[in-house]
Amino acid sequence: MMRSTVFAHRHLLGIENLSQEDILTIINLADSLLEVSERPVKRMPSLQGKTVINFFTESSTRTRTSFEIAGKRLSADVINISSSGSSISKGETLLDTALNLNAMKPDVIVLRHSSSGAPHFIAQHVSASVINAGDGMHEHPTQALLDCATIRKHKGRVEGLTVTIVGDVAHSRVARSNIHALRKLGARVRVAGPVSLLPVGIEAMGVQAFYRVEEALKDADVVLVLRLQKERQEEGLVPNTRDYSRYFGINLKRLQLAKPDAIVMHPGPMNRGVEIEPDVADGTRSVILDQVTYGIAVRMAALTLIAGPPLKE
Amino acid sequence: MMRSTVFAHRHLLGIENLSQEDILTIINLADSLLEVSERPVKRMPSLQGKTVINFFTESSTRTRTSFEIAGKRLSADVINISSSGSSISKGETLLDTALNLNAMKPDVIVLRHSSSGAPHFIAQHVSASVINAGDGMHEHPTQALLDCATIRKHKGRVEGLTVTIVGDVAHSRVARSNIHALRKLGARVRVAGPVSLLPVGIEAMGVQAFYRVEEALKDADVVLVLRLQKERQEEGLVPNTRDYSRYFGINLKRLQLAKPDAIVMHPGPMNRGVEIEPDVADGTRSVILDQVTYGIAVRMAALTLIAGPPLKE
Amino acid sequence: MMRSTVFAHRHLLGIENLSQEDILTIINLADSLLEVSERPVKRMPSLQGKTVINFFTESSTRTRTSFEIAGKRLSADVINISSSGSSISKGETLLDTALNLNAMKPDVIVLRHSSSGAPHFIAQHVSASVINAGDGMHEHPTQALLDCATIRKHKGRVEGLTVTIVGDVAHSRVARSNIHALRKLGARVRVAGPVSLLPVGIEAMGVQAFYRVEEALKDADVVLVLRLQKERQEEGLVPNTRDYSRYFGINLKRLQLAKPDAIVMHPGPMNRGVEIEPDVADGTRSVILDQVTYGIAVRMAALTLIAGPPLKE
Repeated sequence: MMRSTVFAHRHLLGIENLSQEDILTIINLADSLLEVSERPVKRMPSLQGKTVINFFTESSTRTRTSFEIAGKRLSADVINISSSGSSISKGETLLDTALNLNAMKPDVIVLRHSSSGAPHFIAQHVSASVINAGDGMHEHPTQALLDCATIRKHKGRVEGLTVTIVGDVAHSRVARSNIHALRKLGARVRVAGPVSLLPVGIEAMGVQAFYRVEEALKDADVVLVLRLQKERQEEGLVPNTRDYSRYFGINLKRLQLAKPDAIVMHPGPMNRGVEIEPDVADGTRSVILDQVTYGIAVRMAALTLIAGPPLKE
Repeated sequence: MMRSTVFAHRHLLGIENLSQEDILTIINLADSLLEVSERPVKRMPSLQGKTVINFFTESSTRTRTSFEIAGKRLSADVINISSSGSSISKGETLLDTALNLNAMKPDVIVLRHSSSGAPHFIAQHVSASVINAGDGMHEHPTQALLDCATIRKHKGRVEGLTVTIVGDVAHSRVARSNIHALRKLGARVRVAGPVSLLPVGIEAMGVQAFYRVEEALKDADVVLVLRLQKERQEEGLVPNTRDYSRYFGINLKRLQLAKPDAIVMHPGPMNRGVEIEPDVADGTRSVILDQVTYGIAVRMAALTLIAGPPLKE
Repeated sequence: MMRSTVFAHRHLLGIENLSQEDILTIINLADSLLEVSERPVKRMPSLQGKTVINFFTESSTRTRTSFEIAGKRLSADVINISSSGSSISKGETLLDTALNLNAMKPDVIVLRHSSSGAPHFIAQHVSASVINAGDGMHEHPTQALLDCATIRKHKGRVEGLTVTIVGDVAHSRVARSNIHALRKLGARVRVAGPVSLLPVGIEAMGVQAFYRVEEALKDADVVLVLRLQKERQEEGLVPNTRDYSRYFGINLKRLQLAKPDAIVMHPGPMNRGVEIEPDVADGTRSVILDQVTYGIAVRMAALTLIAGPPLKE
């Protein structure tokens, strides 16, 4: 049934270094794993006797839970470690903590860390496979993969689509990973946000930048709304959430500028009434909860490709 | 062996809406599951490949641990989420968090929440089954079920017994759920406490109210002692713990007012020397630890009835 | 293959009350279990259907994770409880919490507690087996066992070796357990540290005390470096970390005083640049990560001997 797949990477650190074929390998497998979560018995033996450590130094319910459920549905032993209560709070370096965890012979370390590059650094020193579950403002590869899988399911393809990413692109690992993934899959990517939240020179990533969201939305197939972090206000990059909402919040009226069958996405957690209005979030165009469902399938796919048995021809 | 049982509810939200037959279905099954925890191999395959999410926005060692052990002894995959570290602390609404968890395709969401009605609200919006593990000052159905199962084991029946609930009835979900359950099973229920801790009009629930604990204890078969929360002192509802203990604490002398074979219960955690004296808590009439043991069996029963395979005739 | 082994203890509370044969039983079994963590399928059925509760009232990533992985590789159901969020923060006594956990019918309670003797106290009141995962300044038996197993692997034996323990011996449960274990296995044990960190009368434990680390290192086979806790500075027992490092830190120059094939150990987490220099920690003589790997095997061995099926002749 499933096409034989080869995934030549030991780690999943980011989208930037994946080929189009790598990306397709993961989301194709995710497509076929989607139904596992609909079964009465949601468990496959693929990772039986494998150890997956979820090591999260930033808290994140949805990502940690998604990896944990993905691991367990593959029959892996999943161990959660959070920063509070970790040796890091006792002054140990990240590398020493990682080397220690690695000496316990896990198959996969899933790392969420506030420093960009932390998973790449760790990956150079451990024998376990490393999956980046979000590093600083750098990458969040499984988020981009689940976003692409969701887009493809709803639109039938990614190539040739116009995808508009709205919000705090400058500080968003979700945006960065998505730009890489969408571009590799042949989509046109637009980014829109206030000057303070669009990085200078973003066009070098192959995207079009807009400072008025209305222009960016015109004829878009996909609207990907980013979360506005509270920190941006504290840093003075955004005057207040009401003004942000007035100029960049995605409401039904603005959404009409996009194509009639455009879909709306958000990586969560949402600030309702800030970057997205409830009637959009809960509307017929929203595929936000499908993203969450694909999150499990994409993480099962990534874990399987990295730590599972070789896939048959 | 086990009688064919039908449990027509998708959720377990409270005792108020259960019939006597529903209650008996759960505690009968709990009775037969009690021995699983005594086996050398304490594991049944009933919930193999099912996902149970323990979502606790209030901390509770015993209830969370009890549900986790119950789920694991049924072979379910159990995922714990607490409020610290959850998206709720990032400003997400409870409903959005619940919808997100639901999109990960759990079979059961066990919810502990500080707001009365939270599980009922969630249950209307998710496809998973919801079990209320305590909501505000409203209900704590599995606690009442384990209490009834414990009473029946020790007394042979619940019908016709006199059960005296002592303490902070006004703020207690344990009391409310027990009043519903005990009344439905045919017990006479008395409540006793200071005026400030007995709700006005409590008699409408079919109970007798007493402001002197001695009268309420007279000829009781069961004494159910409630925990005195520290908050009650801070709110000025109770002068201090010494006075509370002097007038309402259950000591050996007061216990002699009850029937000679009366049993003493407490949902825990106990404040020794406040609502209960150590010689009562550790005495021969105490069945407090049996309650904990029945907690596992009742939760296994509830999970099985709600998420397990159909029971055979 | 594996020699028939008898381990007559229901609990593992400390090294002090173990015989040399007991210690060898555990580390022999650990030796044979070491390869399980190298298998593609790292899972044995030995503790299928057993419940292990990791009850940690002090945080410790490495020890909790090590016990959790050990339990899961033996197919046990492992439940983690930490002090934050436990009933203890609601004023319950340790004994009541332990009795409650015990009433849930676990097979093993692994207890980390800040009070010396807590596991011994609990063990007298519960039907579950208790494993001490570190109690106050008293014992940390699995740490000593993994240290002995690591030494034996690298040196071929423990008997007759000279082992130098450097640092805060006075407050170290690691030191105490190691002194007991190493002495029982026939090693010569030296301790070295500032006067303020060596207990008066330590020689009664059968060790030699040195106030200059250089003398203690002379011709040592094993150098076991203890972590300097920040609390020691706050208590005024150590002037500052720079001075401590100057007089007692293990650097390459000091290490040359030991035997040419001496190994260096540290229980972690390390304060690099304080009690140990990076070039020693990461040097060819360091077996620090092997200790971590042995930690899994020793805990698997302890759990198996205490809660597993009888071993065959």
